[in-house]
Amino acid sequence: MNDNHITTDFEKRLIDIVGKAFVFTDEATRLQYGHDETEDYSFPPTVVAKPDTADEVAAIMKLANDHKIPVVPIGARTGLSGGALSIHGGIGLSMERFNTLEIDEKNLQAIAGPAVITQVLREAAFEKGLFYPPDPSSMGSCTIGGNVAENSGGARAVKYGVTKDYILNLEVVLPNGDIIWTGANTLKNSTGYNLTQLMVGSEGTLGIITKIVLKLLPKTTHNVLMLIPFFKSGQACEAVAEIFRAGIVPSALEFMERDAIDWGLKYLDDTSIDIKPEVQAHLLVEVDGNYPDVLFAEAEKIMGVVEQFETDEILFADTEDQKNALWKLRRTVAEAVKSNSVYKEEDTVVPRYELPTLLEGIKRIGKKYGFQSVCYGHAGDGNLHVNIIKGDMTDDNWKVEVPKGIREIFELTVSLKGTLSGEHGIGYVQKNYMNIAFTDANLQLMKGIKQLFDPNNILNPGKILPDTIV
Amino acid sequence: MNDNHITTDFEKRLIDIVGKAFVFTDEATRLQYGHDETEDYSFPPTVVAKPDTADEVAAIMKLANDHKIPVVPIGARTGLSGGALSIHGGIGLSMERFNTLEIDEKNLQAIAGPAVITQVLREAAFEKGLFYPPDPSSMGSCTIGGNVAENSGGARAVKYGVTKDYILNLEVVLPNGDIIWTGANTLKNSTGYNLTQLMVGSEGTLGIITKIVLKLLPKTTHNVLMLIPFFKSGQACEAVAEIFRAGIVPSALEFMERDAIDWGLKYLDDTSIDIKPEVQAHLLVEVDGNYPDVLFAEAEKIMGVVEQFETDEILFADTEDQKNALWKLRRTVAEAVKSNSVYKEEDTVVPRYELPTLLEGIKRIGKKYGFQSVCYGHAGDGNLHVNIIKGDMTDDNWKVEVPKGIREIFELTVSLKGTLSGEHGIGYVQKNYMNIAFTDANLQLMKGIKQLFDPNNILNPGKILPDTIV
Repeated sequence: MNDNHITTDFEKRLIDIVGKAFVFTDEATRLQYGHDETEDYSFPPTVVAKPDTADEVAAIMKLANDHKIPVVPIGARTGLSGGALSIHGGIGLSMERFNTLEIDEKNLQAIAGPAVITQVLREAAFEKGLFYPPDPSSMGSCTIGGNVAENSGGARAVKYGVTKDYILNLEVVLPNGDIIWTGANTLKNSTGYNLTQLMVGSEGTLGIITKIVLKLLPKTTHNVLMLIPFFKSGQACEAVAEIFRAGIVPSALEFMERDAIDWGLKYLDDTSIDIKPEVQAHLLVEVDGNYPDVLFAEAEKIMGVVEQFETDEILFADTEDQKNALWKLRRTVAEAVKSNSVYKEEDTVVPRYELPTLLEGIKRIGKKYGFQSVCYGHAGDGNLHVNIIKGDMTDDNWKVEVPKGIREIFELTVSLKGTLSGEHGIGYVQKNYMNIAFTDANLQLMKGIKQLFDPNNILNPGKILPDTIV
Repeated sequence: MNDNHITTDFEKRLIDIVGKAFVFTDEATRLQYGHDETEDYSFPPTVVAKPDTADEVAAIMKLANDHKIPVVPIGARTGLSGGALSIHGGIGLSMERFNTLEIDEKNLQAIAGPAVITQVLREAAFEKGLFYPPDPSSMGSCTIGGNVAENSGGARAVKYGVTKDYILNLEVVLPNGDIIWTGANTLKNSTGYNLTQLMVGSEGTLGIITKIVLKLLPKTTHNVLMLIPFFKSGQACEAVAEIFRAGIVPSALEFMERDAIDWGLKYLDDTSIDIKPEVQAHLLVEVDGNYPDVLFAEAEKIMGVVEQFETDEILFADTEDQKNALWKLRRTVAEAVKSNSVYKEEDTVVPRYELPTLLEGIKRIGKKYGFQSVCYGHAGDGNLHVNIIKGDMTDDNWKVEVPKGIREIFELTVSLKGTLSGEHGIGYVQKNYMNIAFTDANLQLMKGIKQLFDPNNILNPGKILPDTIV
């Protein structure tokens, strides 16, 4: 499949559908829509189209099917697995004009276009006394449509779940141009196969999401945030499981290796936190609710749990400014690493008790293949981001040895009953590791689902499934 | 498709797989496995087999495929939509021997065979300080496998979600005999299409679940339960949405029409609750947590909310016995109705603010078609069970007029952005209403998924999809 089919005539027909102002073939626009936040990849679409309605998307899909032209739905391009890359060229379908948002206070629901920025949704809900919990690190710039496509998580997933847990119903344009609603606007639903959840996390390969009905919660009013320094990384990981076993469900439980916090502080030029040289890792722990006394009681319980480990003095964030500073630090780690070196980010996830084994294994594998890694992430969910640093490694080693090491990391992850991606998706960069997580029977089923939805394989081709399967 | 293919030779081969002691063709056993709790239907399988391992199930599926014999997975036969009925005869595959249960305290997970009774799972978790929230009314006799197949809910779904929200990973025997795990034992997962959630609620039509990995929570230690009598049913429904808008997420919020509670009390021969003649409906409201003071504060907030409606004195259940009595009353309603009359139970669900409109519409439609209904259910989720009473209606009216009325009720439900079933499933009895909830494009996709998993249509054929589609 390639983009040679796009002719002037085809472009004219695209213009007929979305209007001249919303079709672009200039190089600057194509390059702009040809990358996301995945390493340094660039796969520009042949043409960028910006439809405004589900009907326009449907007409484009019919046209693309007639001409067997690839179509790649594009959101805010903050993805970390290359889901939005036009690896076979074709039409880059930017969904940026789908930005309507309605908060339904009566039913505690939101009805959003896919282009609504996650933070905008959260704030609009908050203003009405409601709460949309998922908070990916990129929430200030990523969109809810992309969150649905990748089943994004975030720090609050440990208590409140991930994007999939808030999606009630989706309007979807199927690859053949049919427009469907996948479910109903209800909290419970046992009516036929769960097309809604099949669509969530399908990374724009099964259909194009044009409207999203989300569940909201009443907002919580208070939280307590603490940063706990550990002298041993493994003990920080162990403490994660112990906190839950003490009966506490924190609203966030984040792990940061020493390097992660150092790089973050340096990147932010922040000197407010003084960390002893012997500290190897931190846990950032938040509890939330509506009753401050309860939160202090829970914070005390957590302190009781971590006392059994070798920790330095716990830092409590007392003011909103201190809390924001700590969260900014945590959210900046990926950016800080990126600014330092070419890197690859893996999104390993295991049952949370297995975290110490995973961390230890990652370091061992890194030594074997000669790479350094910075690890951090949502330890409460067992979701550990592994940033593998190129640093001064040779290009040869980077291309040959590192992928072997990544394969071993994933094999370890899967042997611990974990899997390849907790919240970033498989997209383009992880697809050839899929045979570690799944048997051929699984992969053939997934391929069958893809073929059922998209018989001509025009919608975001070359994603999720390994090259050996398709 | 019919059961004529089952020969003595076929039976011998079944015996070769599961052993002579676990294959039954006697009438008593066939009748026993030929019904569930759906109306008075009886569809006995031709032969009942009771395998013990996934490998045995796989061998049976291969054999059944070779001979094009229908296979119907059977759990505890407590279903309310006929999902376990062998409507085309064939093999009734009782999963009752899959009853292993392991509580993984370190990861807050349970690993259960499908035959584990829901209440047994809940109690085993509780003993370890953990909590499995889903609590279908039949939890004392239904099994977790059936709960997964139907995506069962229960009273606590309003705060804690339904079965699907606790399913991390499934071991499944596919119709062709392949054995797969659908996902990973992790809280987050963005790794390929969500086969786990596709399987949940698929009512035994896509695969046979042989092992289930579930998420558990730390247990809560306290709750407050109150019964609020309303002089107007519509106001009880309105109060449901208001409680959430006041920022409270109750752990249960149940609605019972006057008739429901009267029938329940009569059935239980319970005289402990005295209800004024003018009371039209009750809300049963529970809040739970670990801090009694907080729960009393929330209960007071709820009292503040319902004060604006016309209510009688609120009854607080002070002791465990009183609480159990109230829950028993609520859980008995369906049984009480069943003991009184032939009936059909619908499982309507709408966005919760639409409840008063739904209730009013059901009564209007009942009058039009000449039937009485008793309504009750999980109002916090907008999930209203509608028991349509035959009473002294003629058989003709029951067969001709009532289905027209049910169709109108579902049309109303869908027009309110709701759907056909919140927690009972579609199974056999609701399948021909599916075209109300879904367009032909949706139904064709669902049919395509069924064909992909089960090309010979041998696994639980004739369920979910309407006769016009298959």
